[in-house]
Amino acid sequence: MKTLVIVSHPDINESATQNFLKASFPLDEEVTWHEVVDDIDIEHERQLLIENERIILQFPLYWYTAPAALKKWMDEVLDGDFIFAGQKPLANKEFGIVVSTGISDKQFQAGGNEKFTISEMLKPFEMTANKLQMSYLRPLVINQFEYFTNEQKQALVVDYQCYLQQIDDNFDGRLNWFIKRLKDDGQDLLADTLLAKKNELNDLSWQVKTMREDDGEG
Amino acid sequence: MKTLVIVSHPDINESATQNFLKASFPLDEEVTWHEVVDDIDIEHERQLLIENERIILQFPLYWYTAPAALKKWMDEVLDGDFIFAGQKPLANKEFGIVVSTGISDKQFQAGGNEKFTISEMLKPFEMTANKLQMSYLRPLVINQFEYFTNEQKQALVVDYQCYLQQIDDNFDGRLNWFIKRLKDDGQDLLADTLLAKKNELNDLSWQVKTMREDDGEG
Repeated sequence: MKTLVIVSHPDINESATQNFLKASFPLDEEVTWHEVVDDIDIEHERQLLIENERIILQFPLYWYTAPAALKKWMDEVLDGDFIFAGQKPLANKEFGIVVSTGISDKQFQAGGNEKFTISEMLKPFEMTANKLQMSYLRPLVINQFEYFTNEQKQALVVDYQCYLQQIDDNFDGRLNWFIKRLKDDGQDLLADTLLAKKNELNDLSWQVKTMREDDGEG
Repeated sequence: MKTLVIVSHPDINESATQNFLKASFPLDEEVTWHEVVDDIDIEHERQLLIENERIILQFPLYWYTAPAALKKWMDEVLDGDFIFAGQKPLANKEFGIVVSTGISDKQFQAGGNEKFTISEMLKPFEMTANKLQMSYLRPLVINQFEYFTNEQKQALVVDYQCYLQQIDDNFDGRLNWFIKRLKDDGQDLLADTLLAKKNELNDLSWQVKTMREDDGEG
């Protein structure tokens, strides 16, 4: 599915998170990294929206929403002349969000410092998707990237690529993704071995899941 | 209470709502109308915030939040250097919102076109007030001003002035406000008559309220 990732950050080159995401970007001609610039070419942006089926807004959280430059992009590009023209140009496409915050995920709940959840906080985006008749995807939230361990960073690469390519968020989906990555890297033997053992691995994953649930962790 | 109304609109002179609100603005030296400009004088804005005890953001809804220019103001003026400096400069002040929309209030609920309530939609502002340790006031929401009757417009003048001056939202509060307005206009006789009958009117208001509640309308 052709996917446009609209990236906005006040100082993108200085952002460790955005640099990491850029380096982790999938090598997939269907998925485009597209930065918001100050001087917006409105017609060009609209053409990109029309050409893509999945639109992802990627930004750091500023006052619990998008930074001003991305809001400017939204106000200018998504104005009534465009979005309500004839057949709604964005209807039935997908709308996703990749948002980074400097806040611990524990704080986003009743009783936490932020009091409300990420889902509550992002309601204006959900309402926007609703108005555009787009399908609102669960957001990918990256909290406190600056404290990520190497292991967490590796997991983020997988999460990010799976999110942009909307790989099914389950063991089988991720296994297929991993096998494809191995093939792309020329690791055919390893890929084939994994593929041959896929059913076995799926069974194993199911057993682990069941054991965890029996343990009350599921 | 010294009140700063920060007004942002992409084309303020062409806005019927903003022009009406400007004409309805209370003649009260404690309350200041202050428009956001493109070229923000950050230090001056911060000084204004420090000098005032109640901060009101006034804007038309764009994509379920503030227009880009107001978001720019928030991102630039309310940055970490300012808001977390020493004693938090905005703590214990009040934070209000005057928002106009082109949408019928009936649509802001589950089952309505917009699916969510105004309270849900404005969560990022509530979270901002919370972060700033400010007291979040109920917002004043103006839906579909373009369809207002003259009577609704008159009511809006009272609502708006009472909101900015935070007159108690009950009959006695509004009566006091009305008596003050009459005095300001030199209508002393009428004001004194109303003042003399205040208790009587309050009793009457209470009786009407009780009767309504008995009727199941309360």
